[in-house]
Amino acid sequence: MPAPKEFLDYVDHNADAFIQRLSDAVSIKSVSGDPAYREEVIKMSNWISQQLQAVGVETQLADLGRHTMDGQDLALPPAVLGRIGNDPKKKTVLVYGHFDVQPALVSDGWNTDPFKLTVLPNGQLVGRGSSDDKGPVLGWLNILQYHHQNQKDLPVNLRCCFEGMEESGSEGLDDLVKKESQSGGWFDGVDCVCISDNYWLNTRTPTITYGLRGLAYYKVTIEGPAKDLHSGVFGRTVHEPMTDLIKIMGTLVDVKGHILIPGVDEMVPPPFADEKELYEKLDYSIKDVEDSAGASIALSDDKVEVLMGRMRQPSLSLHGIEGAFYGSGAKTVIPAKVSGKFSIRLVPPQTPEKVFPLAKAHVESEFAKLGTKNKLHFEELHGGLPWVTDINHWNYEAARTATRAIYNQEPDMTREGGSIPVTLTFAEALGVSVLLLPMGRGDDGAHSTNEKLDRSNFIQGTKLLGTYLYEVGAAAAK
Amino acid sequence: MPAPKEFLDYVDHNADAFIQRLSDAVSIKSVSGDPAYREEVIKMSNWISQQLQAVGVETQLADLGRHTMDGQDLALPPAVLGRIGNDPKKKTVLVYGHFDVQPALVSDGWNTDPFKLTVLPNGQLVGRGSSDDKGPVLGWLNILQYHHQNQKDLPVNLRCCFEGMEESGSEGLDDLVKKESQSGGWFDGVDCVCISDNYWLNTRTPTITYGLRGLAYYKVTIEGPAKDLHSGVFGRTVHEPMTDLIKIMGTLVDVKGHILIPGVDEMVPPPFADEKELYEKLDYSIKDVEDSAGASIALSDDKVEVLMGRMRQPSLSLHGIEGAFYGSGAKTVIPAKVSGKFSIRLVPPQTPEKVFPLAKAHVESEFAKLGTKNKLHFEELHGGLPWVTDINHWNYEAARTATRAIYNQEPDMTREGGSIPVTLTFAEALGVSVLLLPMGRGDDGAHSTNEKLDRSNFIQGTKLLGTYLYEVGAAAAK
Repeated sequence: MPAPKEFLDYVDHNADAFIQRLSDAVSIKSVSGDPAYREEVIKMSNWISQQLQAVGVETQLADLGRHTMDGQDLALPPAVLGRIGNDPKKKTVLVYGHFDVQPALVSDGWNTDPFKLTVLPNGQLVGRGSSDDKGPVLGWLNILQYHHQNQKDLPVNLRCCFEGMEESGSEGLDDLVKKESQSGGWFDGVDCVCISDNYWLNTRTPTITYGLRGLAYYKVTIEGPAKDLHSGVFGRTVHEPMTDLIKIMGTLVDVKGHILIPGVDEMVPPPFADEKELYEKLDYSIKDVEDSAGASIALSDDKVEVLMGRMRQPSLSLHGIEGAFYGSGAKTVIPAKVSGKFSIRLVPPQTPEKVFPLAKAHVESEFAKLGTKNKLHFEELHGGLPWVTDINHWNYEAARTATRAIYNQEPDMTREGGSIPVTLTFAEALGVSVLLLPMGRGDDGAHSTNEKLDRSNFIQGTKLLGTYLYEVGAAAAK
Repeated sequence: MPAPKEFLDYVDHNADAFIQRLSDAVSIKSVSGDPAYREEVIKMSNWISQQLQAVGVETQLADLGRHTMDGQDLALPPAVLGRIGNDPKKKTVLVYGHFDVQPALVSDGWNTDPFKLTVLPNGQLVGRGSSDDKGPVLGWLNILQYHHQNQKDLPVNLRCCFEGMEESGSEGLDDLVKKESQSGGWFDGVDCVCISDNYWLNTRTPTITYGLRGLAYYKVTIEGPAKDLHSGVFGRTVHEPMTDLIKIMGTLVDVKGHILIPGVDEMVPPPFADEKELYEKLDYSIKDVEDSAGASIALSDDKVEVLMGRMRQPSLSLHGIEGAFYGSGAKTVIPAKVSGKFSIRLVPPQTPEKVFPLAKAHVESEFAKLGTKNKLHFEELHGGLPWVTDINHWNYEAARTATRAIYNQEPDMTREGGSIPVTLTFAEALGVSVLLLPMGRGDDGAHSTNEKLDRSNFIQGTKLLGTYLYEVGAAAAK
């Protein structure tokens, strides 16, 4: 059941109107991380709800309560829940997106007003939130508009979950998703989830994402003297916390990225028989990684090794030291208490719970070897699970078929090196297949200055998401 | 030629008046490091000059020009030069001190107004500059007052150099000292120098200091990507500058304080035959070092080893990292460019010039071993020579004899772990013996809150400095 030609034509013919609507959405400064803009985020909740209602969707503004930000007690912007269709013969698809954005000021280095969508001659739609994530949210609206205006039934029952706190930790969403996933809730009966909130691997090839790394963030604190000491007076008389900490931090990872904490790398099974072919097929090169890093510093000349390093291997990064001198210039103090920060990006079957005792045991063992009289404290600051799902599920088949239909290309099947925590929330609460189907390109600059969405990605992306729904509909008919 | 009993009695009888004068001096807020107080420092120059003139000393306010501080163009406070006596049969002694002070606010944690000298029941004179260094400067004034008031000749020709920028790098002083040391200058004909601007090793035993460590401060920069990278996206795909830097910083010093840069520790000769006895004799214990550090973290249980570690061994301290995450919390960035800061406290025959090539070669060699694709830059930010002088010189004999006379104790003969750069300035410009003869105790809290000078140290210290001049006079007569 491919998408009707009439739908695809409708999207092309209404492209300018769709872009105008995106411009309206971008003009609402829905920055969730700054209390000064909280009213704008709430305005955006209402705007989305009204847009959905206008295309026949029943909605609810879900109250998420209040929270404290920068010392202010604030109402959380309501999440927008939507529901259309209840045909037991159809699959029920839950789509997720967010309508809040990262902060943006012209003075950050924007070439144009970030909250005024600017259409460049090369087709780029420049503005904060164009790609992350107002464009994809409006993609769903575009599809709904076609069906509503032409009195066509959707090929699936659709449920929407659009939130306004994604850029600030999705506060309140977990509880809402759990609640609405129960019997009688808005997400009761959902057969699969589609999240459009990430990016193609490159600028050329549509992408489907089936895995995310988790995270375990650690803090190693070494404490010695009661106060910072003068290095002239105390140098070579006492155990210096920085000396101890640097030694310990040096035992965590080697220069080639191998994790030296015993048992961490070893926890990950070797690639299965044809797994390397998955990475070989990806439209990506060492040049791509080095272009985006801005320097020729790839860990390997082997593309598969580099891609597997990002996607299916854990990584350990040393982020910095709290408590030591960090300014320019030449301060000669011996810091009294220093905390090294490092994190491990996790892949299945690793979990923060499984990795913590290994990391703790290693750090404590290395500390014991030092023979220092300073004191050690080791703690986890943050943890999040990794996620990988079955790419042969009908949900993924639908997305692949839709991609071939719209882009005439095989999609890159990727795992992301970072995390999108809401993915796990849905997977755990609903126990169904969750699909990541991005709209934008790898160079959209989601959290950066001059964020853009290419016009073709917005328009073809709308067709892709619509066609995906038709392919899910076809799966139900099988 | 011991000091006349009449002088010692005069000091005792005038103690309260001397303390009142110290109180007047403390009330002038001569903070050299804050432009807001510059007029107070200049006021202090004039006050010192007038005080010297009142006791028969010819003075000159030496203009040091202007400088920029916190973006403001400011007049440097003039140094005060003094001259009394020109008898060719007498030794000519140059005494140095400074009348500027560190900043001090009640809100820093002072129990009293820092610029109002408070006499505590236990005899402590609490106030900013009481010990560092207005007390010692006024000690010289007390001595001069006795001789002037009683029409007694000084046992030596005296020259004074009192400055108002010591706490801010002694700006302008080097050039002045060089100029005035030339033929016809104010310091022409000086036979020895006495600096009273450091502290006893403990709170019990008068101290004479004959050595200072130098300093070489280094910055190791590792540069990789063009900008900070997301550790999810780039972790285990690129060479991370922090990983490289931590490895290199880990090769510089071991946990016991041994410097691992080949040739640096080895440059220092082993202790000469009886040298360890010098340290064994010092009135100091492991408890003293641990009390002042505030923790039981001494590198050794052997007092001689700990004292030699501070005084006659070089030390290497890791100070921090510029460019990495240093806040609290859990930021997951891969920093693009990081600079490790470390310094080596130097002892003779080490010099910054001799140590730099060893440090550079070591860092470059360790970097090459890593096999990283990132880039290395190594530089020296700051260098200062170490200094040790002959403790058998008559200048030191005079100080030792004077100490025995006043305190009825053998002085601790110490080398300081830190640096007092003006010492080298005088030693190099004049080529004569320079003596460090402190007035205050090891717990005076010179740069800290609640700085104090014990009344007994001020009064006995005045006697000590006066008696020292008589002993130098005796040396001339030999």
